[in-house]
Amino acid sequence: MLYLIGLGLSDETDITVKGLAIVKKASRVYLEAYTSILLVDQSVLEAYYGRPIVVADREMVESNSDEILRDAATVDVAFCVVGDPFGATTHTDLVLRARELGIAVATVPNASIMSGIGAAGLQLYNFGQTVSMVFFTETWRPASFYDRIRENRSIGLHTLVLLDIKVKEQSLENMARGRRIYEPPRYMSVGTCAQQMLEIEEEKGEGVYGPDSLAIGAARVGGKTEKFVAGTLKELCDADDALGPPLHSLVLLGRRTHELEHDYVRQFAVNRETWDRIWKADYEGKN
Amino acid sequence: MLYLIGLGLSDETDITVKGLAIVKKASRVYLEAYTSILLVDQSVLEAYYGRPIVVADREMVESNSDEILRDAATVDVAFCVVGDPFGATTHTDLVLRARELGIAVATVPNASIMSGIGAAGLQLYNFGQTVSMVFFTETWRPASFYDRIRENRSIGLHTLVLLDIKVKEQSLENMARGRRIYEPPRYMSVGTCAQQMLEIEEEKGEGVYGPDSLAIGAARVGGKTEKFVAGTLKELCDADDALGPPLHSLVLLGRRTHELEHDYVRQFAVNRETWDRIWKADYEGKN
Repeated sequence: MLYLIGLGLSDETDITVKGLAIVKKASRVYLEAYTSILLVDQSVLEAYYGRPIVVADREMVESNSDEILRDAATVDVAFCVVGDPFGATTHTDLVLRARELGIAVATVPNASIMSGIGAAGLQLYNFGQTVSMVFFTETWRPASFYDRIRENRSIGLHTLVLLDIKVKEQSLENMARGRRIYEPPRYMSVGTCAQQMLEIEEEKGEGVYGPDSLAIGAARVGGKTEKFVAGTLKELCDADDALGPPLHSLVLLGRRTHELEHDYVRQFAVNRETWDRIWKADYEGKN
Repeated sequence: MLYLIGLGLSDETDITVKGLAIVKKASRVYLEAYTSILLVDQSVLEAYYGRPIVVADREMVESNSDEILRDAATVDVAFCVVGDPFGATTHTDLVLRARELGIAVATVPNASIMSGIGAAGLQLYNFGQTVSMVFFTETWRPASFYDRIRENRSIGLHTLVLLDIKVKEQSLENMARGRRIYEPPRYMSVGTCAQQMLEIEEEKGEGVYGPDSLAIGAARVGGKTEKFVAGTLKELCDADDALGPPLHSLVLLGRRTHELEHDYVRQFAVNRETWDRIWKADYEGKN
C-alpha cells in the first residue's frame, strides 16, 4: 500500500496519531521536500519517528517514481508531504502511476496552508483561487498571478499567495558543468512578494491593486511562533523584520469583508489608523 | 490558555500528536458539535482521550462563551473543532471574546474539508469561493449559492458545496411549547443537494449550470470509507446509495481543468462515456 501522509505545517508533533502509526510501521519512509518545508530538520523527524527517511526531491518524484513505488503492492510505503498531501501541490501523478501498477493508495489528510491561513482572521469562505509567486530574475518575471488576482478581486474575494521556495537549485555555471553542487535554500519573504506584486502593477497599470491595497503577511502559520502583519502592500514591503524567519505567505484582501474580520485583523496592523482609514474608504460595504 | 484544536475529518486518531497532548492535560475539554461531526461517537473520543468531554452546542458557543472561557487565563481549556478550527466555519467571535478577557489563545490546525476535498483529484488551486447548501423547506429556499457559483464559473473555477447538518433541532411545535425535545440529526446528502441545485436553476433559468453539468459527490472525506462519485448533476441526484452514509459534500466543476484531472476523476464516474463526452464538449480547453 502507498500511504500519502500529511505532516501538517510546523513541527514533528503536527503529524496525526493515525499518520504516525503508519510511518512507524512502513517498510520505507519518504519525505517530499521540494514544495514546502517543516520548521524542523529531517534529523528531528527521524528521531521522533524512530525511522530513517529518504528525502524525495522533485527529480525523484517526477522522473523516478517507480523507485518510490517499488514493491508497494506487497509492502507499505509512507510518502510524507508537508501540509496536506493534496494541499498546496498535488501528487496526482504519483497516485495515477500507483494505480497503473495495481498498488492500493490511502491518504492521511492534515492541515494545509489553504485552511491554516484562516488563523489570520478572514473567513475562508471568501477566498478565491490560490496563486503562486516565484522569485523574479532579470529575464523571467512570470506574472500569471496578476490576472488571477484580478478575477478574484472582480468578485470581491481574497487571494492567498503562496511564495516560492528554492531548494537543491544549481547555479547556471554548475548546471552547465554538470557539477552536482547546490545553492543554499531560499525562501521568498512577504517583502519580496509585495515588491514583485507592485512591480507588475507598475508595468501593467491596470489597477488590479496598488501600493495602498490591504494585505496580510503571514509567517510560520500553525507554528508556535506564527506571526501576522497587516498593512498596505507598500507597508508590507518592509515587514520582513517584523515577520521573522520563513515560511511566509501573503493574503491580498478582497472587498467582501465583515466587521468581525476588521476587528480581528486590525490587531496585526502595522499602523491601525492607516488600516482603519483604507478599510473604511475602499473595502467596507464596497462589495 | 484557550486552545482551539482541530480534530480532522474522520475518527479519533485524526487528531495531531500535539493536539492530543493538550487535550489530555487540559482542565476542561469542549467539543464543538454543530457545524460538523466526526464519524465516531463522543464516547469513542472520551475513551481515546481518557477525558470527559462537554459538548458545546451553538447556543453555548454563541450565547454563553464566558462559561467556556471561565478561568482560562489561569487554566488550560481545550475547545475541539471537527476539521480545522478556522476551516469550514470560524470561531473568530470566541477568540475575540477571549482577547477581551486577556486570555491567550493558541490554535492547533488540522485537515479541513476545504483541503481534504483535493483527494477527489481536482487541483485545489482552481477552486473558487466555497458555498453552503441548507435544507429547503416549503417556505425557505435560500439560494445565495447560485450567484456565488455563477461568479466562480464565470472565471472557470470549481465550487465546493458544503452540505447542511441539523443537530439538536426542535420541531416548531416543541419549540412553541418550550419542550426541550430534539429531532434526530439530519445530514444532507449529495442527492438532495444536486436536486435543490437543479430546482433553483429551474426557477431562475439563468443557465449557471444544468442537469448535464459535471460534478463530484464526496462522502466521508479523509476516512477509511471515503467515496467519490462523479457524474452529471442529474446522475448525482440518484447517487446516494453509491455514496453511502454521511457526511457528504459536492464539487461543481469549473472549466479550468487539466488532462491529469480528467484521468483521475473519470475512475469515479457513474458512466465513463457520458463523463468523457461532456468533459470534451463543455470543459476541456473551454477556459
